Amino acid sequence: MDPQQQPSEPMAVVLARVPDGVPTPEDFRVEHVARGPLADGQVRVAVRSLSLDPYQRSTLGGRHLGDAPVGPGDVPPGRSVGEVLESQFPGIAVGQHVLAETGWRSEAVVGGAGVTPVSVPDGVPLSAALGALGMPGLTAYAAHVRQLRPSAGETVVIGSATGGVGAVAGQLARLAGARTVGIVGSEEKAKLADGPLGYDVVVRRGPGLADELAEACPDGIDAYLHLGDQETLDVVMERLAIGARVSLCGLMDQYNGSAPTRLRAGAVMAARAEVVGMVVFDHADLSAEHVARVGELLASGELVSLEDRYAGLDQTPAAFARLMGGQNVGKVVVDLD
Amino acid sequence: MDPQQQPSEPMAVVLARVPDGVPTPEDFRVEHVARGPLADGQVRVAVRSLSLDPYQRSTLGGRHLGDAPVGPGDVPPGRSVGEVLESQFPGIAVGQHVLAETGWRSEAVVGGAGVTPVSVPDGVPLSAALGALGMPGLTAYAAHVRQLRPSAGETVVIGSATGGVGAVAGQLARLAGARTVGIVGSEEKAKLADGPLGYDVVVRRGPGLADELAEACPDGIDAYLHLGDQETLDVVMERLAIGARVSLCGLMDQYNGSAPTRLRAGAVMAARAEVVGMVVFDHADLSAEHVARVGELLASGELVSLEDRYAGLDQTPAAFARLMGGQNVGKVVVDLD
Repeated sequence: MDPQQQPSEPMAVVLARVPDGVPTPEDFRVEHVARGPLADGQVRVAVRSLSLDPYQRSTLGGRHLGDAPVGPGDVPPGRSVGEVLESQFPGIAVGQHVLAETGWRSEAVVGGAGVTPVSVPDGVPLSAALGALGMPGLTAYAAHVRQLRPSAGETVVIGSATGGVGAVAGQLARLAGARTVGIVGSEEKAKLADGPLGYDVVVRRGPGLADELAEACPDGIDAYLHLGDQETLDVVMERLAIGARVSLCGLMDQYNGSAPTRLRAGAVMAARAEVVGMVVFDHADLSAEHVARVGELLASGELVSLEDRYAGLDQTPAAFARLMGGQNVGKVVVDLD
Repeated sequence: MDPQQQPSEPMAVVLARVPDGVPTPEDFRVEHVARGPLADGQVRVAVRSLSLDPYQRSTLGGRHLGDAPVGPGDVPPGRSVGEVLESQFPGIAVGQHVLAETGWRSEAVVGGAGVTPVSVPDGVPLSAALGALGMPGLTAYAAHVRQLRPSAGETVVIGSATGGVGAVAGQLARLAGARTVGIVGSEEKAKLADGPLGYDVVVRRGPGLADELAEACPDGIDAYLHLGDQETLDVVMERLAIGARVSLCGLMDQYNGSAPTRLRAGAVMAARAEVVGMVVFDHADLSAEHVARVGELLASGELVSLEDRYAGLDQTPAAFARLMGGQNVGKVVVDLD
């Protein structure tokens, strides 16, 4: 750190090198950056909590739909909740809480049109606007309402039971009266899935999955939210019930550069399954309904939000490496002072 | 042929050996069989036209959903239209035209409850009840109405443009105002697709398909009826338009024992595609609507029925080998005197 720079100067995480497979903390560095001027129409935001999400991995080196590729020296994209420090945009006031595309920064200058005022119900932390009330929550809500459509008594399997999307989707399915089966990758996650998240059955990813799933889903799987790897998908596809709905929500190959995930077409036919792709931007029209409904469930405590919180921007690289290595428990958030 | 047997004795085609891959005529033999007695509740049917269909391949040695496996010495399953010779079933009368599961026989004794009286519009041959007005036609109709759902101006690709299912589906899509692109495997089929079937563009299966399809579908593919091989599916999946519908209707691996057909999940996600399996038995409720609507189109000449006709039961093995080798042009029917 340059001793000539003021501690109040903004900081950013930049890409040091394009990761090979799962990112490591060494793929990034944290730097002080100059505080830029504020032009007309712009807003300066102090980041309170930064959201880390798997899609960010695929921008590193450049693969993700619609996002600019991030090369060495660039700041990865990222959404934050924060407080408005200065505003040159009508309708956005100093002190307001907003959601903004800030990238991995402590402070950012952003176009006012891209800034969304947020409010969360009493007793719910502001960072919920990044998780259960934010993009992962909307992904889960839209998948639940439009794709999985579980009815009471049906069996719903969630590919990544404790993640930012899966945890919300699993709880929504349970609240709709479905039997929920959560797939997890560790003992620590199994405890969360079994405990606060309230899954009916928890099964472990890996070589024993087929047997565990056969026991957990004797009448087959009516709906499956896929967030995970090829092996899990293969096992689930062979246990679909007739008329099953499969939502492809997160593919490991899209993020870590592994071999393309593929589905056995015969399994789709045998189950007369409906397989669809979930891209959250297609479901922005559900946003108000999502915030109202999930906000209510969070405030009442019927739905819990699991957050994997890190303190300080300099923890971002390690937090991201844990996320992409599948070690996070819940939505990954970096809190800044 | 045994000279002691009467020429009027019934004949049947039996499996001589389980085919290895695509069947050959030598996998079967034609035999005289004894005429059995007629029990109460049964009907004796003289076959007029026997339908050959790809699903029959997968019963040989035993793989197809719900059908009994066919071993050496057994008669493969098959539906026919024919005339009732004798009836011990109330409501089915001698001389009536019926659709029945007769297997590959010239004459069959069947349960009366499984026999369906058929009538076709004036000017339409009885064998249409096996094709455009039968199971392949219902498959096409149900895929069109419930899965492909093309609207005017959309681009619909038919995986096997001149087959029993594809020819009907392609014409229904065109009549709905869609631009239709037919995939064919030979020059002979290209002429039929381009001529009587009225596809807007005809493209050839094989190494040039990706380029031909890119040119034929500049705005992507809105709906795809898959009847074919892995290579074709792979090429089509990469050209789907946003919101595309994909109906998996015929998988080569289900019939000839090739490697399981697989779909790239990332292509499903990128297109926000809806991928579904077509199993005709799920759509029996559309049967009356199908016969009325397609019957009307056949009678008026707006929809044409392509039949690949063979004369005599002894032509069945060769006809089936051509069907499974992809050399048929239209619905394969064996006519008997």
